[in-house]
Amino acid sequence: MDTVLKQLDTILAARKNADVDKSYVASLHQKGLNKILEKVGEECTETLIAAKDAEHSSDNKELIAETADLWFHSLVMLSHLGENADSVLAELARRFNISGLDEKASRKNS
Amino acid sequence: MDTVLKQLDTILAARKNADVDKSYVASLHQKGLNKILEKVGEECTETLIAAKDAEHSSDNKELIAETADLWFHSLVMLSHLGENADSVLAELARRFNISGLDEKASRKNS
Amino acid sequence: MDTVLKQLDTILAARKNADVDKSYVASLHQKGLNKILEKVGEECTETLIAAKDAEHSSDNKELIAETADLWFHSLVMLSHLGENADSVLAELARRFNISGLDEKASRKNS
Amino acid sequence: MDTVLKQLDTILAARKNADVDKSYVASLHQKGLNKILEKVGEECTETLIAAKDAEHSSDNKELIAETADLWFHSLVMLSHLGENADSVLAELARRFNISGLDEKASRKNS
Repeated sequence: MDTVLKQLDTILAARKNADVDKSYVASLHQKGLNKILEKVGEECTETLIAAKDAEHSSDNKELIAETADLWFHSLVMLSHLGENADSVLAELARRFNISGLDEKASRKNS
Repeated sequence: MDTVLKQLDTILAARKNADVDKSYVASLHQKGLNKILEKVGEECTETLIAAKDAEHSSDNKELIAETADLWFHSLVMLSHLGENADSVLAELARRFNISGLDEKASRKNS
Repeated sequence: MDTVLKQLDTILAARKNADVDKSYVASLHQKGLNKILEKVGEECTETLIAAKDAEHSSDNKELIAETADLWFHSLVMLSHLGENADSVLAELARRFNISGLDEKASRKNS
Repeated sequence: MDTVLKQLDTILAARKNADVDKSYVASLHQKGLNKILEKVGEECTETLIAAKDAEHSSDNKELIAETADLWFHSLVMLSHLGENADSVLAELARRFNISGLDEKASRKNS
């Protein structure tokens, strides 16, 4: 399921304990949950601002970039707390009766 | 790519112009961008609170539910502004050199 | 010092344990810190949206109303955690070398 | 009314057009409304996190410092849009039937 997010889950898991001097993700984990949550809140604010600007423009580039930042940092948050995108996608699939989940996701909600 | 989000994109597109008395998504679109952004900000706040509570608990259920709410309302925001999850996933794939995108997503970043 | 906020401090202290059926403030305290913080985050989002709308308008009424909501709910948060506006004003006065504080505020920063 | 905030209003008005190399406030105004709103959102997130940490601690120092940051940056936002603390305090006074406002604030609400 969900190829990009699944691969991001794998990348994020690998970088969790990487060299903090070489990996932004590892440096976020080292700084701790509060720093990660500050980034989530910051990117949410920037998404809201980009959406308001998109209202008066035909260019959605900033909106897409900020939403990507928001999703990315929420994935780091999930990883920091022992979760991943799969859990959230399984929850969304459950709510909307979306089938075709892989085995792991299905088991989680059964 | 990304089955659950792709199916959510389809569901959200279909509900955009549905009967506002029967569809929460349609009612959000009718109320307009500000109302949708209020929900995004609200769900981000609830995600932050759930993450802080998860720090002191072994139960991540609330964290997953609030992150699902945050992603869901950001999808409604994207839909309201003529975008969808595909654009964000393509942006994340581009940043992380993730291949295996479908043709449309690839084109977007070429 | 700061007559309006000082009087608000007094009003908020009095309503902290008021009848929850008659007082919005008392009902917030009863619901607990998470509910109060949800309101702070919600009002911050509405302030950001109002500020973006004020950028394209000559009417600041919504901006003032939402900022008032934000400050008010942050005062309820402070009250819930045993603080009040006085502590925050003393901190701001200290940072900006503003004199004329009342005795209590001065002591706090000496 | 409200000595500290009134003096902050004066300070912020003076720094609005100060040398951007010497004044943080002037540099925020030069960067524009989006940058100022990013700071408001950022400080709100840090206030929420500090409040959650205060729940498990007897030390409110961080809570006070972050709330001061939040109020300060919301004052810069007001200043950028041609408003000031006085307008917000007048609105709060009106809602809570607080008297003793100075003439200007009273006029605003009459």
